[in-house]
Amino acid sequence: MAGCVFCAIVSGAEPAHVVFRDDMAMAFLDVRPLFPGHTLVVPIEHHETLSDLPTASLEGYFGRVRALSAVMQEPFGAQGSFVAMNNIVSQSVPHLHTHVVPRTKGDGLRGFFWPRTNYDGDDHMRATAATLAEAFQRRWDRQR
Amino acid sequence: MAGCVFCAIVSGAEPAHVVFRDDMAMAFLDVRPLFPGHTLVVPIEHHETLSDLPTASLEGYFGRVRALSAVMQEPFGAQGSFVAMNNIVSQSVPHLHTHVVPRTKGDGLRGFFWPRTNYDGDDHMRATAATLAEAFQRRWDRQR
Repeated sequence: MAGCVFCAIVSGAEPAHVVFRDDMAMAFLDVRPLFPGHTLVVPIEHHETLSDLPTASLEGYFGRVRALSAVMQEPFGAQGSFVAMNNIVSQSVPHLHTHVVPRTKGDGLRGFFWPRTNYDGDDHMRATAATLAEAFQRRWDRQR
Repeated sequence: MAGCVFCAIVSGAEPAHVVFRDDMAMAFLDVRPLFPGHTLVVPIEHHETLSDLPTASLEGYFGRVRALSAVMQEPFGAQGSFVAMNNIVSQSVPHLHTHVVPRTKGDGLRGFFWPRTNYDGDDHMRATAATLAEAFQRRWDRQR
């Protein structure tokens, strides 16, 4: 898409430190990594968010994310990985990208990394689950 | 798997606030949410991490994650979503689970949420990309 910096990287118009590229996806280093090796995986086709990624692309795209997540543990001596997408909010570039980040025990980012909150009791939790369940079912019925 | 709390939830032995369940995956509320509606999506089959999820499950599993991510924006008036997996490091339960969290502009979690670091110059970045590229290719050739 015109004006999309990740489309420019995919087309070669903008430089990047490439980890892999094929006809489905491209992976390149994030220039401001959480840790060295922090890589972004983008679909070659411009899709803004996860919900825009076609069903036919799910296996291919996440197969590549999975492979990258697995290799994080080899070349860096990392012990795990963090795999994440920000959709719309906190999404710096409106072209789907999955962060794949090597993690090591004691790397200073123990536990989940945002302040947790609590539900206002079990009724609040039950109502929240019911609302989501209904919305999910509507979406899922459309998607199938 | 015996002793796995998510397997116990899947089997019904442990209670949960269920968002959906079918023969592929189950989603239920995280009891300590980043924001209300924070849901965990787990495969019914016990797989420890993303790299253990079989290729045949990728489309089904991530299709359900995608649908849940999309609906986050409807029932809660959220504007986006955060979708993330911790593999091994920071993974509290060793049964693959994807966090799907509703996000709203101004929710206090602007931008990416960990302190970024920098590469020691372009050579460091080039070497890192090359190491990852080689490891990825080895893994990818095995995986296909």
